[in-house]
Amino acid sequence: MLKHSNIDAILKALAEPTRREILERLSRAPASVSDIAAPYKMSLAAIVQHLQVLEECGLIKSEKIGRVRTCRIEPGGLDGLSEWIGRTRTTTEKRLDRLGDLLSEMDGDEPTK
Amino acid sequence: MLKHSNIDAILKALAEPTRREILERLSRAPASVSDIAAPYKMSLAAIVQHLQVLEECGLIKSEKIGRVRTCRIEPGGLDGLSEWIGRTRTTTEKRLDRLGDLLSEMDGDEPTK
Repeated sequence: MLKHSNIDAILKALAEPTRREILERLSRAPASVSDIAAPYKMSLAAIVQHLQVLEECGLIKSEKIGRVRTCRIEPGGLDGLSEWIGRTRTTTEKRLDRLGDLLSEMDGDEPTK
Repeated sequence: MLKHSNIDAILKALAEPTRREILERLSRAPASVSDIAAPYKMSLAAIVQHLQVLEECGLIKSEKIGRVRTCRIEPGGLDGLSEWIGRTRTTTEKRLDRLGDLLSEMDGDEPTK
């Protein structure tokens, strides 16, 4: 279960396209920092900073073995955000369903000519 | 269908707790700008700015009738983000399933003593 205060940090982390790309890549397979950095023109330091942001909000984890730091996705890291979206959508849909029912009832109550 | 470039704007909009609260409220029922502002200590101008951010990224819409501007949630506004999260989670889960299968196979191959 994700701490509620963490949703802010997760949304800020995901609002950056490079960080979303890195997360998509790690969802397919773990990778070393240098492999993650390879497709990008930015400095290794900038990539490391992006990885730190992703790690601090619990979306990835990393482990250094010898000289190589390997990053992997944290399973369930997106669960809290996904639940929040689900709740907000469900509330909207339920309300619109009720509105639809009400309109149908009103339509049904119309005197037939 | 949400434009891909819009995901950035949506994530930035949602990364602010007040804007998430406003969206949750509007998911329950449409509301006027002054009703939305009522529970907050911040200025009406600040609330209007939050509402503009939510409207510009397609999460809400507003309509002015006479002197009253009413805001309502845009149904489907969170769909694009929800789909992105779904895809990223599915990729992770499929990979972990394959890893699980592989480990089971390796376990099965162990010579019995």
